[in-house]
Amino acid sequence: MDRIPILKLGDALLVTIQVDMHDRLAMALEEDLTAKIAATHARGVLIDISALEIVDSFIGRMLDNIAAVSRVLDAETVVVGMRPAVAITLVELGLSLAGVKTALNVERGMTLIEDRIHADAVDRGDLDDRPDE
Amino acid sequence: MDRIPILKLGDALLVTIQVDMHDRLAMALEEDLTAKIAATHARGVLIDISALEIVDSFIGRMLDNIAAVSRVLDAETVVVGMRPAVAITLVELGLSLAGVKTALNVERGMTLIEDRIHADAVDRGDLDDRPDE
Repeated sequence: MDRIPILKLGDALLVTIQVDMHDRLAMALEEDLTAKIAATHARGVLIDISALEIVDSFIGRMLDNIAAVSRVLDAETVVVGMRPAVAITLVELGLSLAGVKTALNVERGMTLIEDRIHADAVDRGDLDDRPDE
Repeated sequence: MDRIPILKLGDALLVTIQVDMHDRLAMALEEDLTAKIAATHARGVLIDISALEIVDSFIGRMLDNIAAVSRVLDAETVVVGMRPAVAITLVELGLSLAGVKTALNVERGMTLIEDRIHADAVDRGDLDDRPDE
């Protein structure tokens, strides 16, 4: 397997990390993601890491990179499904994932992205700011 | 990695197959899926196989099994993202995946499942049968 599949879900892209990441796979994922954001006009990227028992500084940097590149392309990155033990390790490593939003699961992550799209539409005056009824 | 993550998306569960399946992993996936269908009352199971370059008879049987068990639990299985070459191989192997629905991508698969939920609701008389406006 030399590519991680990227699934389109509404205005977001979903990536599930299941395998050990190495340099080449991480670079391929970043390239594929940027290409797909541009091609699909996605406004958000959901990265599910619920399968990962360990997140080291390499994965931390990869997530930061993806978030930074996506932001330039006007897509927000949300990391979902992080295990509690992984969160503890990340903080101990001094990796706070400052540029990355997190959510408990895919559904909440999707809500975050939809809220942002809605807020942007309100800012542009396309919608009033009442919630959907 | 000894478990494939199962993500909840609305009324469906999403599984992305990225790694080589072996006996134990396939059995664990079937067990996890049935437990999660029961726990979440999911009405559909989406299995994305876009990462698979080869689908052999073992994977074919696993997909059939998952579909059969899910059906008993009142959830429909849709296999999405199959590569054209995989479809050709499946037919050559004589595996037509008779019990499994297929769709081109996750979004179309999700539409299939939502249509079925809607049709069931109409049958029960919870909704009229006009399409959403």
